Amino acid sequence: MNLGIIGSGNVGGTLGTRWAQAGHQVTFATRKPDSKEMQELVAGAGPTARAASVQDAAKAEVILLATPWPATEEIVRSAGDLSGKVLIDVTNPLLNLDGLALGTTTSGGEQVAQWAAGARVVKAFNTVGNNIMADPRFGDRLLALLYCGDDAAAKKTVHSLAAELGFDPIDAGPLSQARLLEPMALLWISLALKQGLGREFAFQLLRR
Amino acid sequence: MNLGIIGSGNVGGTLGTRWAQAGHQVTFATRKPDSKEMQELVAGAGPTARAASVQDAAKAEVILLATPWPATEEIVRSAGDLSGKVLIDVTNPLLNLDGLALGTTTSGGEQVAQWAAGARVVKAFNTVGNNIMADPRFGDRLLALLYCGDDAAAKKTVHSLAAELGFDPIDAGPLSQARLLEPMALLWISLALKQGLGREFAFQLLRR
Repeated sequence: MNLGIIGSGNVGGTLGTRWAQAGHQVTFATRKPDSKEMQELVAGAGPTARAASVQDAAKAEVILLATPWPATEEIVRSAGDLSGKVLIDVTNPLLNLDGLALGTTTSGGEQVAQWAAGARVVKAFNTVGNNIMADPRFGDRLLALLYCGDDAAAKKTVHSLAAELGFDPIDAGPLSQARLLEPMALLWISLALKQGLGREFAFQLLRR
Repeated sequence: MNLGIIGSGNVGGTLGTRWAQAGHQVTFATRKPDSKEMQELVAGAGPTARAASVQDAAKAEVILLATPWPATEEIVRSAGDLSGKVLIDVTNPLLNLDGLALGTTTSGGEQVAQWAAGARVVKAFNTVGNNIMADPRFGDRLLALLYCGDDAAAKKTVHSLAAELGFDPIDAGPLSQARLLEPMALLWISLALKQGLGREFAFQLLRR
């Protein structure tokens, strides 16, 4: 396969290298083909890799887009005609570590906290179906149970309630992180009901 | 612990039953304490469970809120003074199976597709760090690699590129599902960098 990598930083560099090593033809887009970094990247990726301009890389049949979000629009618009191309979008519209520049403007959890004036709200148990809560055993694996809130003691309570049920409770941060946990719930629901996975699946958080 | 369950359907019923069976005092909120369903729920949960009004259940030290989203505001507002309560919010502001009523209004993936006119955009490889892409091995476990897009053939390409790297590729549906995969990326980032998990973790999708 011919792969064009637009955005040859940590992510694009890693994926492009691994695909080149697997035998694919990989073109890393760059404005500085002669830079030391780019020459090292191409050498590390092996004989099926090369460096070229964005426009050249965009001629590949499959394009990986791994640019920093603020640079994305300009680079995509400069890449030439992309009609019919497979474009793998790896970007994330990160505003900073606290939010995304698009979508995720608020959450049900924050809304509930407004309604329940004074309550110490913890968002939890919203990311898996009730069949999983009834029995979270997948062999000897513990499933992730993500929760978030602004009150440390309240989160401790939820943590132990989740652990009692057999989950691996994971503190995801302040209540505004419900903006991330609620989409995760819709992901579970849509995988279960629309993508054919059924309801007997869930995520484990693996550490190494 | 005293637990009040507001919303005694599938989710609240399941969690309340399991906590009651673990020995907690559980009060299921209901408008119909004498209904057959509620009597069966309480009997199944055992001697530490009972049924009561929403206002009564809300007197517990820990409240589980598991109402359907459209009913949530009214029920929370009717629950009385919630100051200082631990309120576990399990609700999801589901609009329907296609979206949330709050947040998630668009995504970088959809924006990229507008910029890259005619390209067959697949959102992928955005939910884990490059250290995971470089080496996705966690013992013999395969990590989930979620992707979404509107072109079936393009998704097939991405599926095999992900499988080649040692991932378990999972089709998450149309490109608009990037509204769910981008928050998942920010979740990974914030767990790694702010919640102390570091970068050497990722999610496996377990099936049973």
